Order: sequence, then C-alpha cells, then structure tokens
Amino acid sequence: MNDLAPLPWHLTAPSFQEIEEAAGRIRGVLVETPLLESERLNARLGGRLLVKAEGLQRTGSFKARGAWNRLALLSAEERARGVVAFSSGNHAQAVAWAGRRLGIGTVVIAMPADAPAAKIDRTRGWGAEVVLYDRATEDREALGRRLAAERGLILVPPYDDRRVIAGAATLGLEVVGQAEAMGARPDALLVCCAGGGLTAGCALAWEALLPAARVFAVEPEGFDDTARSLAAGTRLGNAPGATSLCDAVLAPMPGALTFAINAPRLGGGLVVSDGEALAAMRVAFEDLGLVVEPGGAVALAAALSGCLPIEGRTVAVALTGANVDPAMYRRALSSGS
Amino acid sequence: MNDLAPLPWHLTAPSFQEIEEAAGRIRGVLVETPLLESERLNARLGGRLLVKAEGLQRTGSFKARGAWNRLALLSAEERARGVVAFSSGNHAQAVAWAGRRLGIGTVVIAMPADAPAAKIDRTRGWGAEVVLYDRATEDREALGRRLAAERGLILVPPYDDRRVIAGAATLGLEVVGQAEAMGARPDALLVCCAGGGLTAGCALAWEALLPAARVFAVEPEGFDDTARSLAAGTRLGNAPGATSLCDAVLAPMPGALTFAINAPRLGGGLVVSDGEALAAMRVAFEDLGLVVEPGGAVALAAALSGCLPIEGRTVAVALTGANVDPAMYRRALSSGS
Repeated sequence: MNDLAPLPWHLTAPSFQEIEEAAGRIRGVLVETPLLESERLNARLGGRLLVKAEGLQRTGSFKARGAWNRLALLSAEERARGVVAFSSGNHAQAVAWAGRRLGIGTVVIAMPADAPAAKIDRTRGWGAEVVLYDRATEDREALGRRLAAERGLILVPPYDDRRVIAGAATLGLEVVGQAEAMGARPDALLVCCAGGGLTAGCALAWEALLPAARVFAVEPEGFDDTARSLAAGTRLGNAPGATSLCDAVLAPMPGALTFAINAPRLGGGLVVSDGEALAAMRVAFEDLGLVVEPGGAVALAAALSGCLPIEGRTVAVALTGANVDPAMYRRALSSGS
Repeated sequence: MNDLAPLPWHLTAPSFQEIEEAAGRIRGVLVETPLLESERLNARLGGRLLVKAEGLQRTGSFKARGAWNRLALLSAEERARGVVAFSSGNHAQAVAWAGRRLGIGTVVIAMPADAPAAKIDRTRGWGAEVVLYDRATEDREALGRRLAAERGLILVPPYDDRRVIAGAATLGLEVVGQAEAMGARPDALLVCCAGGGLTAGCALAWEALLPAARVFAVEPEGFDDTARSLAAGTRLGNAPGATSLCDAVLAPMPGALTFAINAPRLGGGLVVSDGEALAAMRVAFEDLGLVVEPGGAVALAAALSGCLPIEGRTVAVALTGANVDPAMYRRALSSGS
C-alpha cells in the first residue's frame, strides 16, 4: 500500500510557471550566459551548433541556478537553521556561494575526498564547512540525511527537488529565447546528465516552448545509467568500481523525480568516452575561447562524435561547467584534435 | 608648407555618430560579448572588476569589429577589386572572415612568418591568400602598400583609419551599456594597445558617454611606445630587437591618427611583463572560465599587478583575444598564480 501514498510535494515536477518564476528570481543575481556559435564548427558539422556557455555562470557551473532558486525560497526560520548538501563539487560551490550571498550562517557540504582540489578549496572559500567522504564506500545521500538530522539543517538535494529542477530549467528557457534572437530554431538540445536535474528541467522547459524539438541526456562511459534506464523503462544503477575523468557527472543512478520527468520526455541517452570529452574540451579552447571541464564537455563531445546527425540541423549543446584543475586541462590540450 | 595640408578624411577621428552607426552595422553579425565579473576576483582586489570577454567575438578577437565596419563600407566597385591587410594575426583573421562573409573574392594578408601557426592557418581557413614576411627586416606597411598598388587592392589598415577605429569603438560603447545594466559606473577602462586603434575608439566612446572616467592603454614590456609617447607628447618608436610573448600587441610605434586621438584623452599608459600577462591568463582560466591569449591578457594583468589602484573603485578591462596555441597556453597554466 506504500506505493499508493502521494509523493511529497518537493518530489513532484515543477510547473512551467515555477520555471518562469525561477527565471525572475535569478535575474540580476546570476549571469544570462551567452549562446555562442562558431562558423568553423558549423562548417565542420554541416549544421548549426548553438553553444550555451554556462561555464561563465556564477561559481563556474549551471548548479548556481538550482542552488539559488532553492535557497532563495527558504523561509527566514529555515535560513537561520542552515543548509547541508552533498556534491562532487559544482553543487557544493553553488550552495556555498548562494548561502553566503543570502547570509545563511551555517552551510555544510559533504564532498568526495577525490573531488578536484580546486572545487574543495573554492567551496571552503565561500565559507562552507566541508565534510569529506569516500566515494567508493560511503552513501552520500545517507551522509547528507544524517548531517541534516543531527544538526537540524535543511538538506538541499543536487537534483531530486522541484525547486532545484525549476532553477536548472532556466538554462533551457534562456537557450530558447537566445536562439530565437539569433534567428535559429533548434531541433535538439544536448545536456550532460548525472542525476538528471538539468536534463529534467530543460525537458520541461522545451516541452512547453519547443515541443517539436528533442532533448537528449549525455553521459560518460561507465556512468550511462540514464541511457540504460531510459532504454529499460526503469531506473538502473551503474556498476560499482567504474571510473571517469568527468567528475561532475558521476551519479550512482537516475533520481526518482528526475527519471519520472525524463522518461516520457527525452529523445534518448547518448554516451561518450573520456577521450571524446577531452577532445571536446580542446575544441572549446580552439573554436570558442571557452574553458570547459570534462563533465561539462560531454554534450559537445556527443555533438562532435557524430552519434547524433547534425548535418542540416540546428542543435544546441550546454557547456555546463568550467571548474577544472590546470593539470587536467593541460592533458586535454595535449590530446589530438 | 606640407604640414598645413589637410589630412585625408580617413586619417581624422570618427564622430560619435559614426561609432553609433558602426554599432548598428555590427548588430546581428558580430557578438555582443558579455561583460562578466568574478566575486572572487572582486574580493581579492577590494573593488569591482568588469571583464569584457571579447575573446568570444567572431574570429576570437576585437579585430572583427573594425574589419567588419571597414569592409561593410566598401563600395561595390571596391569589393570587386578586393582587399589587402597586414597583421600579426588577429586583424588578419578578422579581415579574411569579413571578406568571405561579404563575398569579397580577393583577400590578401601579409603576416609575419613568426606569427602563431594557428593564426596563419585560420586566416587561410577563411579563404585568404597569406603572404609571409620577416618581422625583423621588412616594413609591413610598405609591403601592404606595395601589394595594394601592384594588384589594385584596397588597403585595410589595422588601426589608422577612422572606420576601423569606429568599429573598435563599439567595444567601448557596449561596455558602458552593459555596466549600466549591472548597476555599475566604471571609473576606468583598461585596454591593450599596439597601434592604438581600440584604445582610441574606446577613448572617443567614453569621452562622450562617461567623461569622468579614464581610459588607459596597456602594453607589454619592450613595446611601451604608447606609454613613452604619451609621456613625451610625441610619437616614439620601440627599440629594435625587443621580443615579447604578447604577439598580438607588438606595433612599431603609435599610429598617427590613433596617437592624435589618444594623446589628449588617455589617463596614461601602463606596462606589464610577459610573466604578468601569463599569470593573468591563468586567472582568466581559474576565475572566469575564459581562454585568453598573452596580448589579450595585458589589461587584466595591469589590473592584477596593482599599478592602478582598484580598491574601492569600479574598473573595466577588455580581454581582447583568445587565439593562443595550446603549447603557449599550457605554459601559462604552469606559471605560478
């Protein structure tokens, strides 16, 4: 009978109106990141590639959108209690930043000990208390819930929350308006997918605004849980022990809410290798002048790999984060193009 | 008596109306590059730093502005004849790109043989015929004039032309509007300076729109001809044999027109070392997510070096180009920060 219990409100999909409200809430605080294109890339692909430069966002990733929208909706009483989040790095920085900007005194972030050093440093730099955990042996969600319970903090989930998804959806909303201003009508949008929050938000926004277009989730090899889950029609996890350079997009399995939103809406899931992600980072360097981290480059990597035909089409891709250590970036620039 | 002859029209300063017309001419063709800021950088400097991300411009530098404005103003007869330009790389790509986009059949570019390989390749990639010359022994202006005379081509100067300067000035125009939209009122603008066209254009635009603010020219060590000329009150050249990593901003001396515009208007000239330029490239990588080439980073380098006090002030800097070879970029990322 438990299955028949109504889902809690925050675990149901946001309305389009909530997405528009989130867009109003982030205005003037977050960056309306530019939608760019490269004539050289377009010529190479034989189509039109629109690139959302979301690495230029506050804290260097799209995560600032969901974090800001969620934290701005906290009551005064909740802000006084403080927040806790678990994250491989980008949600961590985003929650820490939003917390400081909103004057929230206590911000606790659980981060994997193998997260890029720059991400851990920057999260601390925004004044957050960082609790490190072992990605291989500890359950980050359980850790987050335990910290919330023990210290009376509000848990800010990285994706399975309608307010976080509504915030992420503003990226999809902006792309539609910016493409229109460029005289472009996209046939598809490719976004990176870990837990699926950005994908879900964009799928909802595009369903309302560009129903004929298709949204695709892009994942790194070994972490293609969403692609396999979409194909199977049910949530499947990743095999333990897999590794990837794309640290920002390594979730154990699709979220319950995000998968419920994504399953009936997505065009499918695409998968790229670490090598393809590094090559896409180099293309962003050479043809766009943009710094992109490995996980933030997977959607561009999918567009370049040919797994989705772009010839004669207009395809938007989100470059979702720029938080990469110099050593990893040098490696990407050394890779063949 | 020769001194009393009136200057040819193209060697006189553009009016503010011409700058506004240029802004209309580039709209929808060029990118209104974003004006960004980093809260981390602001905190470090104790002021507000507004960063014009002009590396995201078509062809990866501000040079597309002047090239487009000049070439769009060619008559049908002039377009049929074709154009020639001399350039260390960014003006080359810009003229080649604008020429192709306007359907100009003959575009000849004289480039120094030691220009970054990527700049030469990309100039050819836009369909231009590249003529290489020796930077140390050949006079590029004479070469450009000779090519123009021999082949009946229109010479497109890199800076000493009122239409090129009006195009470059649109960058300054945009910064004012974008800063206003961010609730910021800049006290100063720092721009890189080689021949002085961007500096002159911005000085004219800011004189009209923000007369209380100051515009500064920033140059690399060994190529501080504008700084010394401003101090001396007359045009001085650089000592022969100097070298710099900042390939984009190495002109032999200030232009006649640009110096006439700049001398009464600039706040002064600032000078940075190659090491400071490389460190600024790394800051742009870490705090802004932007790829910048050495010459495009000198204004940011000046802001970071402390040679102009930023504490309590609002200062805009232009990151003017992103065309850097991977090897040079890896070197910048290896430099201490």
